[in-house]
Amino acid sequence: MNATVIANQQFRLAARPVGLPKPTDWRQTSEPVQEPRDGEILVKALYLSLDPAMRGWMNEGKSYIKPVGIGEVMRAGGIGKVVASKSPLFAVGDYVSGVLGVQQFWTGAANDASAALAKIDPAVAPLPKWLNALGMPGMTAYFGLLEVGQPKPGQTVVVSGAAGAVGQTVGQVAKHKGCRVVGIAGGKDKCDFVVNELGFDACIDYKSGSLREELKTKCPQGVDVYFDNVGGEILDTVLTRINLKARIIICGAISQYNNTTPVKGPANYLSLLVNRARMEGIVVFDYADRYPLAIAEMAKWMRDGTFKSREDIVQGLEKFPEALLMLFEGKNFGKLILQVSGE
Amino acid sequence: MNATVIANQQFRLAARPVGLPKPTDWRQTSEPVQEPRDGEILVKALYLSLDPAMRGWMNEGKSYIKPVGIGEVMRAGGIGKVVASKSPLFAVGDYVSGVLGVQQFWTGAANDASAALAKIDPAVAPLPKWLNALGMPGMTAYFGLLEVGQPKPGQTVVVSGAAGAVGQTVGQVAKHKGCRVVGIAGGKDKCDFVVNELGFDACIDYKSGSLREELKTKCPQGVDVYFDNVGGEILDTVLTRINLKARIIICGAISQYNNTTPVKGPANYLSLLVNRARMEGIVVFDYADRYPLAIAEMAKWMRDGTFKSREDIVQGLEKFPEALLMLFEGKNFGKLILQVSGE
Repeated sequence: MNATVIANQQFRLAARPVGLPKPTDWRQTSEPVQEPRDGEILVKALYLSLDPAMRGWMNEGKSYIKPVGIGEVMRAGGIGKVVASKSPLFAVGDYVSGVLGVQQFWTGAANDASAALAKIDPAVAPLPKWLNALGMPGMTAYFGLLEVGQPKPGQTVVVSGAAGAVGQTVGQVAKHKGCRVVGIAGGKDKCDFVVNELGFDACIDYKSGSLREELKTKCPQGVDVYFDNVGGEILDTVLTRINLKARIIICGAISQYNNTTPVKGPANYLSLLVNRARMEGIVVFDYADRYPLAIAEMAKWMRDGTFKSREDIVQGLEKFPEALLMLFEGKNFGKLILQVSGE
Repeated sequence: MNATVIANQQFRLAARPVGLPKPTDWRQTSEPVQEPRDGEILVKALYLSLDPAMRGWMNEGKSYIKPVGIGEVMRAGGIGKVVASKSPLFAVGDYVSGVLGVQQFWTGAANDASAALAKIDPAVAPLPKWLNALGMPGMTAYFGLLEVGQPKPGQTVVVSGAAGAVGQTVGQVAKHKGCRVVGIAGGKDKCDFVVNELGFDACIDYKSGSLREELKTKCPQGVDVYFDNVGGEILDTVLTRINLKARIIICGAISQYNNTTPVKGPANYLSLLVNRARMEGIVVFDYADRYPLAIAEMAKWMRDGTFKSREDIVQGLEKFPEALLMLFEGKNFGKLILQVSGE
């Protein structure tokens, strides 16, 4: 392979979006693939992960990770194949996960901390699973639920965005730990999926307009753990149903990310006082040294057929801008992935 | 003493307030003092505690304690003297603390759970202190700070309502535990008091309009523990300055209790996510079995002169309605107490 004559198509951040990202917030560029120097590798991107968190990375301001700069290639996690290597850490043909960016090829130091490349084994699970249950969303779900949520067998766990990448895993891990699990999702298809395919005990279609009533009937013992991916009205409504000493995991707030008005804070937060309850944030990177344990446990469940996951795969790097919007419109059904190339 | 000929003046809840309690929300009644029957005692109220929480007790709806019913004597903690006893638990002349209600005399079973009577020792500290640092506000401060807040020596603790009953104790306990302590209070007098009299490291006058800037300069290492008594804009502003793994104790939200619009939820709550921080409620009753330990420790500090507290004592039961409003207007300076009778 002669990498120097191959073009690398990229999406760069052209402007900080106001509200939903517009086509003009992106700039599509093409540059020659960079050949690896000593210690570097060249990775061909196969699958890119599209996540609600990406919206936050596009904003200016201090957060848990630095914003993507104007003119920079948009940050994205992905799965790729090593196509050239001048590092002993990875060999040509290895599959890796890491922060590859929204582009066809990634070149850089094999031990680059911000890329966080790791070898993955396609024999353990198909590649897209490594962006879902065995990737960041799965790790977020696993450690957020178990470490922050501290669910006990028999307790009721509620998760919003239940059919999404994080929600699928939250619910199934909670079931494996002996909890009653109630999902919240948008639409009958997603609700049917998490109950019939993933084994949740119940699911509430928040679009039905009866969230408050259904929380009562479907969580007759109240809510012990709430894993929140959405924020807004749903968080506020669940706060009215929490039990004493409940734990609320703040993982995201997809309903608020594209606000042009200030974020809607949870007006019912004093329910934390009344119930001596806790609301706590999770950032997955804090648990990096324990990812292998979580992967091993979930891969075992996958092998024995007691853990499933669903991906929604969009084809083609050029679809990136419109595919990203699917997340904020609730149009994806399962973990949203952009397939950049065949293997 | 012939109790039957003595009148017991009372304040009863006449209507559920909308916004600030109005004079017509109260009904003043007078009834003959009830003589104790077997197992009962008669307590003459000396001091009644006026607390922000009372506003919540006047609302309908589920909370950590049942609402005061329309027509019932308003609930209030207090200090009194036993003037007649048909119970072996208390003798005439004993001083007691308990839920006496807004009235001059309390008669009931010596072991009545909702009154929660306990003998107090005026030799340990003057009676009003038993409604302040050695009473509910002090216990709330002590256990909220230490159990929920988990401050470590050298960390920065911020407390709002710093000159109030809870705030005074939060700050001084935190100083005793080796923390840097920054208060937030309304006005220069209160700020001077907590710094010069109570030994806080600094205080921010939120009325100065520069809370955000002063939080930066007075908490150069950020905020590790925030003890919130006020909610609203102050909570939201502190959320922008919290450190990784910060703990926010939700003790009250005096800025929101008289809202006729919905409570303002903390719009910056996603700072919990970014900082993997925690927001947790405290209800003091959960720590009842350990009150004696807290009292012993703070009484020791009082004796050795390293712990002070200030009360704002209003004279006369008839002043109850207007005195209560002082809390919501920030007019009290120190723990607000209504003196019902001389000893």
